[in-house]
Amino acid sequence: MAGNSFGEAYRVTTFGESHGAAVGCVVDGCPAGIPFDDDYLRRELARRKPGGGSASTSRDESDEPEILSGVFEGKTLGTPIAVIIRNTAQKSGDYDRLRDVYRPGHADLVWDVKYGLRDHRGGGRSSGRETAARVAAGAVAKAFLAKHGISIRAWVRSIAGIEAPTPGGGGFDLDEAEANSLRIPCRRTAERAAAKIEELRKAGESAGGVVECHALGLGIGLGEPVFDKLDALLAQAVMSLGAVKGIEFGAGFASALMIGSESNDRPLASGIPPLASGKVAYSSNNSGGVLGGISNGARLEFRAAFKPVPSIAKRQLTIDREGREIDLEIGGRHDVCVCPRAVPVVEAMTALVLADLMLRGRGNRC
Amino acid sequence: MAGNSFGEAYRVTTFGESHGAAVGCVVDGCPAGIPFDDDYLRRELARRKPGGGSASTSRDESDEPEILSGVFEGKTLGTPIAVIIRNTAQKSGDYDRLRDVYRPGHADLVWDVKYGLRDHRGGGRSSGRETAARVAAGAVAKAFLAKHGISIRAWVRSIAGIEAPTPGGGGFDLDEAEANSLRIPCRRTAERAAAKIEELRKAGESAGGVVECHALGLGIGLGEPVFDKLDALLAQAVMSLGAVKGIEFGAGFASALMIGSESNDRPLASGIPPLASGKVAYSSNNSGGVLGGISNGARLEFRAAFKPVPSIAKRQLTIDREGREIDLEIGGRHDVCVCPRAVPVVEAMTALVLADLMLRGRGNRC
Amino acid sequence: MAGNSFGEAYRVTTFGESHGAAVGCVVDGCPAGIPFDDDYLRRELARRKPGGGSASTSRDESDEPEILSGVFEGKTLGTPIAVIIRNTAQKSGDYDRLRDVYRPGHADLVWDVKYGLRDHRGGGRSSGRETAARVAAGAVAKAFLAKHGISIRAWVRSIAGIEAPTPGGGGFDLDEAEANSLRIPCRRTAERAAAKIEELRKAGESAGGVVECHALGLGIGLGEPVFDKLDALLAQAVMSLGAVKGIEFGAGFASALMIGSESNDRPLASGIPPLASGKVAYSSNNSGGVLGGISNGARLEFRAAFKPVPSIAKRQLTIDREGREIDLEIGGRHDVCVCPRAVPVVEAMTALVLADLMLRGRGNRC
Amino acid sequence: MAGNSFGEAYRVTTFGESHGAAVGCVVDGCPAGIPFDDDYLRRELARRKPGGGSASTSRDESDEPEILSGVFEGKTLGTPIAVIIRNTAQKSGDYDRLRDVYRPGHADLVWDVKYGLRDHRGGGRSSGRETAARVAAGAVAKAFLAKHGISIRAWVRSIAGIEAPTPGGGGFDLDEAEANSLRIPCRRTAERAAAKIEELRKAGESAGGVVECHALGLGIGLGEPVFDKLDALLAQAVMSLGAVKGIEFGAGFASALMIGSESNDRPLASGIPPLASGKVAYSSNNSGGVLGGISNGARLEFRAAFKPVPSIAKRQLTIDREGREIDLEIGGRHDVCVCPRAVPVVEAMTALVLADLMLRGRGNRC
Repeated sequence: MAGNSFGEAYRVTTFGESHGAAVGCVVDGCPAGIPFDDDYLRRELARRKPGGGSASTSRDESDEPEILSGVFEGKTLGTPIAVIIRNTAQKSGDYDRLRDVYRPGHADLVWDVKYGLRDHRGGGRSSGRETAARVAAGAVAKAFLAKHGISIRAWVRSIAGIEAPTPGGGGFDLDEAEANSLRIPCRRTAERAAAKIEELRKAGESAGGVVECHALGLGIGLGEPVFDKLDALLAQAVMSLGAVKGIEFGAGFASALMIGSESNDRPLASGIPPLASGKVAYSSNNSGGVLGGISNGARLEFRAAFKPVPSIAKRQLTIDREGREIDLEIGGRHDVCVCPRAVPVVEAMTALVLADLMLRGRGNRC
Repeated sequence: MAGNSFGEAYRVTTFGESHGAAVGCVVDGCPAGIPFDDDYLRRELARRKPGGGSASTSRDESDEPEILSGVFEGKTLGTPIAVIIRNTAQKSGDYDRLRDVYRPGHADLVWDVKYGLRDHRGGGRSSGRETAARVAAGAVAKAFLAKHGISIRAWVRSIAGIEAPTPGGGGFDLDEAEANSLRIPCRRTAERAAAKIEELRKAGESAGGVVECHALGLGIGLGEPVFDKLDALLAQAVMSLGAVKGIEFGAGFASALMIGSESNDRPLASGIPPLASGKVAYSSNNSGGVLGGISNGARLEFRAAFKPVPSIAKRQLTIDREGREIDLEIGGRHDVCVCPRAVPVVEAMTALVLADLMLRGRGNRC
Repeated sequence: MAGNSFGEAYRVTTFGESHGAAVGCVVDGCPAGIPFDDDYLRRELARRKPGGGSASTSRDESDEPEILSGVFEGKTLGTPIAVIIRNTAQKSGDYDRLRDVYRPGHADLVWDVKYGLRDHRGGGRSSGRETAARVAAGAVAKAFLAKHGISIRAWVRSIAGIEAPTPGGGGFDLDEAEANSLRIPCRRTAERAAAKIEELRKAGESAGGVVECHALGLGIGLGEPVFDKLDALLAQAVMSLGAVKGIEFGAGFASALMIGSESNDRPLASGIPPLASGKVAYSSNNSGGVLGGISNGARLEFRAAFKPVPSIAKRQLTIDREGREIDLEIGGRHDVCVCPRAVPVVEAMTALVLADLMLRGRGNRC
Repeated sequence: MAGNSFGEAYRVTTFGESHGAAVGCVVDGCPAGIPFDDDYLRRELARRKPGGGSASTSRDESDEPEILSGVFEGKTLGTPIAVIIRNTAQKSGDYDRLRDVYRPGHADLVWDVKYGLRDHRGGGRSSGRETAARVAAGAVAKAFLAKHGISIRAWVRSIAGIEAPTPGGGGFDLDEAEANSLRIPCRRTAERAAAKIEELRKAGESAGGVVECHALGLGIGLGEPVFDKLDALLAQAVMSLGAVKGIEFGAGFASALMIGSESNDRPLASGIPPLASGKVAYSSNNSGGVLGGISNGARLEFRAAFKPVPSIAKRQLTIDREGREIDLEIGGRHDVCVCPRAVPVVEAMTALVLADLMLRGRGNRC
């Protein structure tokens, strides 16, 4: 009801405000016997931390996790896995001036109207810091999926209008995406983008971008055919990140311009019954790996559009609690573009959906 | 789990295969006292029926609904509202040849692998016919929302690459959208589009398009701040329509190209405390009416991209159950573009989300 | 939220008022491939019908079901199974006098306060007629369970204070329970009870009783260890029948009088590791087959206490909508004791819980 | 699915094994603005701690809670409230011998079969220690209910066969229930029971008992009329405590022996329309305050039967993982009877159900 949980069979609840004692998650439904430990979890969380990259804030979020339950001798117990990450680097003083002011592009105003009170020290529950808990929950999901041969990779497809090469195209190098701080799968594009980001930072501005995500090994049958379609659940999962303004699968919005014979991905003959093999190849992947909401054996592919970070250094007009005009200059340390740090979060959300649907079952027969 | 229900506080379950006895819905959670009757329901369903328009199938789907429960003397009782719509116009014979063949762009193959058996007479549960049940459920939701001053309007924004004027732009006329069979809010554009559709029909082809949807009267506070954000739930709802390949809110994918000062919608001073009035105006609406997943008082705005109808008259290569190549020519009567008929379905899905969030509460205070 | 659904993996929604067009159910989550047809369903529903027995009403409820979806060529499709049963035998005239009067022991008053309006023609949604929909849903569940070797049997343990022999005791004959109209597993007890029931009917009175239910073949591992314990879910399921005032498992309330060495059921040595065999025998069954909320391999056993039917022929004092005293004489045809007809309903509710837990999984390992 | 959450509108998730780092809870759905702080929480938890009483273990469970989120400046924020209680007093050494042995009356065996592995150091997730998390969640619920005029009181009705006076009867003194360590509402009965408990302890035995619980201030309208009846949800809630073997409301099992005119609680004339006042008095309270699953304005009353503590000092025969007979002598420190410590847990579970139903709404009108 209050929407702090996600998933049915693999159910994740997150909690915590950005400037409270801790953020954390409880994962309910993970089967027993999955390898899971502190080191692996720490590595996953480190990917979301502000990097040395020019797009990121210089805040030092240590993100040291503690596993409180559900793991015994390095394996999941089948019981709820609770992880907490204490908030240590938060400087509440930065935010005191914001008690009665509504920052443009933030949830401050709607929050005050809805709840009557809020923890004004930063975004509170709406802060991006909440996504650390999602990454922790996603780390468990990834470990579960790995045991079933499913892997997920996301990267920055474009930033501040600078486009990376497309997958399979010349210059595309997925290893590079984890090597540079902008998570762009092409060193030269990354360098150009870094220069652009630096320029925006100096101007007190921020930038938007697009994150692309692929998943392999889903096989045929993941997803439920009506409301809980694979793509529908992923759309909820990814749109539930505050800065995302759109999502598209496969050919996405370009599908609207196609004709039928172009858009249809044709299954290719192999001489092997798909019911026996569970495998099919296609002439194209405009579907992005989903047909009627169910994985069709092709690669899962989607892209999400992120708006620019709303906290900019430039002065902005806004209003306060009394409805009066305020000339606002936001201090603190903020990302210029959220996309590089969003990459592991998009992967985590994808992992949550896939783990949930795996536990619901690829097949549904007696 | 099996995903045939949607919503928590206002929960809808649909049932029915395209060629079984009936499709229908059960609405659980609608409060008592909402005016609801057969005539209103019939009118809402009529909007989804194949029209005389060139984009639609010539099937005569009578869509005569029967309200089985939950309504007494013209008002909802607060108990589950069950509506059924019998399947009368289905010619199963058309489909007999398709028992062992997998149509490209359809869920036939994935369904066979997932369930082991299927009702091959048409799309079965994956058929667009299931959306008649959604429209019935949405009709109840709209009646509930109307009592709270919330209204929803969708239309065809583009079809086969032909773009309608944008809202507020010259030539945009929302009344026209319900007057022409393509549901395009501009007569001249509708005429051009009709000609294009006719051309594609003759070529045995189909077309994609974009549907836009607005909602008014949400006020501030609808939506839950983490996983059940207003836009996240709408994304799930709309992506759960089989032909949708993407969705975007407000500036959407264009946000990715903006800088922060451009993207931020600034609340405008009125001298009245927003907490008292529950109202705020903004300098722009790039957010599409949602901030941090919560309605901000601006107009809710989103667009969804639909792929071309996969059932085309043109011959296509595909495979059968044995994995052998098949040269397929699909008979039957099919829409050229699903968008005009999708308009009331998109409205219905929007109504389901808004009714659900209204019942969860705009405010969350003791 | 509004509570018209039950179960998570095997989810049942019921709808319908006693004097509306129909009652019915939608079963979501039943796997594909389970044999299910009209004849079987009709037989299950017939067991709930008013019999010729002296405890039952003489109303002729025809209970002719129609399967609307989810079944194709005699097997479940894995899609939602909708069943409706039209209300044909309801004489609304009997109830006109009750529009403004609150019958003692009925939900009339609380319903009016909660919803502001109600279908006063009988119990509406609170009527026992709603349980016909539960029996239909339970019939599907039983078919599913039968495929997994699980069977359920309930009977009347006592009625109007007359006790049947206990299972395993002299005179206990389970076949007899389906042979006599009181569903008592002993002919002589049934005869004595019938005489007592007849005496109460003449006096314008009604009687309470106890229904006992056993299930076999659960194996070890059914049930989730914290809130969704096997016995906890069964308690909700059975207490959700309007006339039930208590439920107990195994030794039940008698456990409160035992000491530890008496109460503990000792697992018996077999020389075979339980993890391999999934089987264990016990020295006793005070647990009723559930330990820590999980089935332990022993027979599942519980008993439910039913209050007397509140609709009695005898005059009673009560109040009307205005709070004024009313001297009430209820007409219509009513059961003297609900227990015999409750037997298939208790079985159905047990089947719903077991099917749900089976689909959640006996084991929870990767 | 895995059942570690309870409630819909007021949703509680618990986590933690008895010998892991911590147990805890997340409360999702509590409105903003409820007073809540460490001191109050500590007092509630202290009531569940092993007392100096003769029925309790001598383990020193410090139960020092930490509120991690959802509370700001002494009030709830409307965001998830996470509370953890570290496990400090657990002596794992006591349990080493139990790695491969299945204690009678415990979940060890079923757990091993279901999950394949378990934290053998105590009951793990099935331990009574998990109920500390429930008490923490219940403390929040009680604070919410108090704001709405609802209060809950439970006590020990009988222990080891020794019965306390009934409410309203001579010798019944509810203040006394919190004054003596057995939580019996009569000093003389408490003394007799203490002597009996001491006798059992010396004999290496344990005892069962009955806990009674009342709630005031519910008004008319709490509860949903079909599956989520007030009594059905309470039955699930209370039966989800591992040692409970039965529950009954109002006249309970005695109802089965009544006749209709005796069982029916008659609403008493007041001359005031119940729809306006929301209040009604009754001639008796056999219903225990619930009609058709909805609170009827009378006092909510139920009783739960607890089995004897299965961990007894006396030697017992049982089996090990290999299915071999084992002569077991359990060490460690264990309660003789769980009832006194169960009192606050039963109150907590009642509070969870009432808070959930309050948030779903007493009324359901537009």
